Amino acid sequence: MELTIYLAGQIHDDWRNEVKKAAEKRNLPLNFVGPQENHDRSDQVGVDILGEQPNKFMTDDAASSINNFRTKLLLEKSDAFIAFFGESYKQWNTAMDAGLAIQAGKPIILIRPESLIHPLKELSNQATVTVETIDQALDVLGYVYE
Amino acid sequence: MELTIYLAGQIHDDWRNEVKKAAEKRNLPLNFVGPQENHDRSDQVGVDILGEQPNKFMTDDAASSINNFRTKLLLEKSDAFIAFFGESYKQWNTAMDAGLAIQAGKPIILIRPESLIHPLKELSNQATVTVETIDQALDVLGYVYE
Amino acid sequence: MELTIYLAGQIHDDWRNEVKKAAEKRNLPLNFVGPQENHDRSDQVGVDILGEQPNKFMTDDAASSINNFRTKLLLEKSDAFIAFFGESYKQWNTAMDAGLAIQAGKPIILIRPESLIHPLKELSNQATVTVETIDQALDVLGYVYE
Amino acid sequence: MELTIYLAGQIHDDWRNEVKKAAEKRNLPLNFVGPQENHDRSDQVGVDILGEQPNKFMTDDAASSINNFRTKLLLEKSDAFIAFFGESYKQWNTAMDAGLAIQAGKPIILIRPESLIHPLKELSNQATVTVETIDQALDVLGYVYE
Amino acid sequence: MELTIYLAGQIHDDWRNEVKKAAEKRNLPLNFVGPQENHDRSDQVGVDILGEQPNKFMTDDAASSINNFRTKLLLEKSDAFIAFFGESYKQWNTAMDAGLAIQAGKPIILIRPESLIHPLKELSNQATVTVETIDQALDVLGYVYE
Amino acid sequence: MELTIYLAGQIHDDWRNEVKKAAEKRNLPLNFVGPQENHDRSDQVGVDILGEQPNKFMTDDAASSINNFRTKLLLEKSDAFIAFFGESYKQWNTAMDAGLAIQAGKPIILIRPESLIHPLKELSNQATVTVETIDQALDVLGYVYE
Amino acid sequence: MELTIYLAGQIHDDWRNEVKKAAEKRNLPLNFVGPQENHDRSDQVGVDILGEQPNKFMTDDAASSINNFRTKLLLEKSDAFIAFFGESYKQWNTAMDAGLAIQAGKPIILIRPESLIHPLKELSNQATVTVETIDQALDVLGYVYE
Amino acid sequence: MELTIYLAGQIHDDWRNEVKKAAEKRNLPLNFVGPQENHDRSDQVGVDILGEQPNKFMTDDAASSINNFRTKLLLEKSDAFIAFFGESYKQWNTAMDAGLAIQAGKPIILIRPESLIHPLKELSNQATVTVETIDQALDVLGYVYE
Repeated sequence: MELTIYLAGQIHDDWRNEVKKAAEKRNLPLNFVGPQENHDRSDQVGVDILGEQPNKFMTDDAASSINNFRTKLLLEKSDAFIAFFGESYKQWNTAMDAGLAIQAGKPIILIRPESLIHPLKELSNQATVTVETIDQALDVLGYVYE
Repeated sequence: MELTIYLAGQIHDDWRNEVKKAAEKRNLPLNFVGPQENHDRSDQVGVDILGEQPNKFMTDDAASSINNFRTKLLLEKSDAFIAFFGESYKQWNTAMDAGLAIQAGKPIILIRPESLIHPLKELSNQATVTVETIDQALDVLGYVYE
Repeated sequence: MELTIYLAGQIHDDWRNEVKKAAEKRNLPLNFVGPQENHDRSDQVGVDILGEQPNKFMTDDAASSINNFRTKLLLEKSDAFIAFFGESYKQWNTAMDAGLAIQAGKPIILIRPESLIHPLKELSNQATVTVETIDQALDVLGYVYE
Repeated sequence: MELTIYLAGQIHDDWRNEVKKAAEKRNLPLNFVGPQENHDRSDQVGVDILGEQPNKFMTDDAASSINNFRTKLLLEKSDAFIAFFGESYKQWNTAMDAGLAIQAGKPIILIRPESLIHPLKELSNQATVTVETIDQALDVLGYVYE
Repeated sequence: MELTIYLAGQIHDDWRNEVKKAAEKRNLPLNFVGPQENHDRSDQVGVDILGEQPNKFMTDDAASSINNFRTKLLLEKSDAFIAFFGESYKQWNTAMDAGLAIQAGKPIILIRPESLIHPLKELSNQATVTVETIDQALDVLGYVYE
Repeated sequence: MELTIYLAGQIHDDWRNEVKKAAEKRNLPLNFVGPQENHDRSDQVGVDILGEQPNKFMTDDAASSINNFRTKLLLEKSDAFIAFFGESYKQWNTAMDAGLAIQAGKPIILIRPESLIHPLKELSNQATVTVETIDQALDVLGYVYE
Repeated sequence: MELTIYLAGQIHDDWRNEVKKAAEKRNLPLNFVGPQENHDRSDQVGVDILGEQPNKFMTDDAASSINNFRTKLLLEKSDAFIAFFGESYKQWNTAMDAGLAIQAGKPIILIRPESLIHPLKELSNQATVTVETIDQALDVLGYVYE
Repeated sequence: MELTIYLAGQIHDDWRNEVKKAAEKRNLPLNFVGPQENHDRSDQVGVDILGEQPNKFMTDDAASSINNFRTKLLLEKSDAFIAFFGESYKQWNTAMDAGLAIQAGKPIILIRPESLIHPLKELSNQATVTVETIDQALDVLGYVYE
């Protein structure tokens, strides 16, 4: 049984590659989807497709509408959802997308460091499982196949 | 027609009172609900009700389960949802609750300062309306009654 | 049993008053809700609340977000939906709102002149009832109370 | 990942072929579905299948029921929805189908010329993305695969 | 706690009055709603409101659209659904409305004579409760208040 | 695009074979599912699987629970629903299953002879399309592929 | 704001009275609903209303259909759900009803003694809040009003 | 047509193998999914993946969150649900999961011995079919393919 997993979280480092490698190492038949990982492309996609915008708000709004199109479509296609939080960045997208996924009834794995226990306590309590590392998240996904 | 509005956002200052005063000034028949606004009570409610917990994770998890109970019940009772973001605090709860409300089909007003346009661009794009001040949010609510 | 009826359609003449008078004449316990009927206010509400916008697109987008907030909230509160089409104006809002209401499972009355049978044939076929006059629409609503 | 895209809009010229060519040029694994594109067949299908009808209303109603059957089935099968508006024709079907798709939670791309910003402002505000050309719409679909 | 009960079934005799009397005798705070009980009015309501129709199909279709409007609205308002089947009449409306109510998650009481056990076996199996008399149905409703 | 069609209706003659032949003649990629067509097996399946039952009610209830299991599972798997009514038999199952399918949002084709216009008028009005022959129903299904 | 709370759990002692007294002591505007608390009536209601049944299975099935009617109706009317588990009795009803309430999106409070941590671990993990005493459950409900 | 069946019930003996063998014997194209069947692994999976926990409650809660992740994901993937109850063990998971499946609209087969008729009467009444042996359950599944 192939499963599709949405990977929500910041796009400043390559944690999604670690997830994919950990899945390959375990030979799990998982497909991973998620947001645009090229940060500049993600911020500029509105301008790239629609042309120069008159101000910062419209530049951001145009980009976000296209990012939301991608997320809405891929989230609907997913069987489970991983939300990854680190100590940097605001990551409000990740938290909003987790809310969308919870309300849509998707099973959720939250990955967060111990230092974020307190600010993420309500999100952790609504996630299906909370772990601290990518390896633990993959162990949870692997458990579905045991 | 009375309406019930959920007020999501940080609980470190009294912005909800400003909302309520602005509603009274306009004579709008609105009921406001939201999370526990006493910060200490919100953090300690797990211990207050269930007794001392063995560690920080369980202290936080107990509190968050009771906070989530309140939010889940009151969000369901609400006709619209205001998400208020300021420059301080992580406010991941607010972003997650906005996601829950969006997926549940509630009309959403996002209040955020100009400085947060960029990090909140996807949330703003999914909100029904985005404004910058409490007064503007109340103007939007008042418009429903015109 | 009081019922709330959403009145979708153009806002250039006072057809909604005719609906209300026809309901009063029949002593029906109906509440009517709908979009902002002051056309200028409807077009300018974005600027009125959020201030001058840098261009025509943003002026319109700001107004429409606030109009959509009102529609989304009041449509959810409604027990039935009337879509009124005349020979003037594009009325794409009305057609979109009818689609929203159909998918949400609301009972729909379509009012349209004979001259619009052809372009409205798919909408008419999905409406619960199609009539040609306001009086006929009120007869249908009155039938619920017989 | 193959995706199925519903193409809503007028059926008087061959804009859907442009969409398909633009997808082929980009090598995107997209399937396109939509309404009957032969205008005469679309208008006459009720008579073609059910035989002569006694009047214009029944001719139109019979055709529209079969067109709605096709739309309802194919819309449900679609992963995303494109609504294309031009300056001619009433296109109320397109606006209603957009409403059905929005309420069903499908991601929506609205294609409309600059001249229609004002009359389509509420629909644009509820679409996931708004663009002005077919090429831009395909750029958005292509972005999902980046 | 007042409850609203939809009474589906034939409209050729006054069984609904028996239901109402049985509720009064038990002092149950129940509101009963249902289809138009005047059979001629039910069949002629299309013509009464929309005027003479060109043929039998359109006469029936016009009436049925108005009857369906009433049913759709009142069924949505109901807390429970009674389907009453007797030995006469086709009663396909009743069976269809029972299907609509089951799929909508309403609690259902089926009243049917012993002689109809076989042809109603699948409907009986999907109803929440099956009884043989109006008094038994009211006993079931009364049990909710014990 | 392969489609699965549920064929509801009486199981006393082989009309489903006519449907299948008409689909083959048109080369349509359709899969047909439906109830058990062996009438004796359908009535006796409760006893066949669960053993002799103490009375007629339990014999029928056991059979109907297994028939409902099959219908519930296959209806969920279907893309469209055909309800076939003839002049014989009570066919309350068919009407109930049509109600279940309508409420579940499936596109519905009703096949009924002219003589049943009146008793099926409300069901016809809620069906997506109404036709009089199997060939017409297949023409409608074929139209989806044009 | 008055709230309605469903009280699921065994009906062998009067724990529901303790709940009501604890609510009164705190002056909380709560209405409590739940299953029939008279155990004999609950077991015999099928026979009481429908008459003697031919065997134990039918006696139980008749009673359970009427109990399920009551639960289905009252659960739908409830804003929150309390599941109370003690050390005696199988209480499979309570666990099933908790599953129904969780899937329906109701906020859930689980009350269970420490000795049942292990066998109720999955249910506890899906409940919104888990407590050990009735007083703690009422503290949680009271927290909604703070 | 391949179907996926969720097998809920205790994990102390190998009844699931009997189910699989009975399916193979009948050549039914069924995939079976369900909870972790290694009891120790099921109880220890929280500790196995997340490390030693400070107390029994957290050990159980960690395990249950991972078990619930598996169940939530696989239940969503299933076309039907079998709940197997024996005379030993509390099996509250099974009853809760049956409630989740019923509310999600899945067809349910309950397998239970005659001795459990009384305590499982409400669950049996809400299941789609109730049988006493694994062979009977497979007969029901086989009936879908006849």
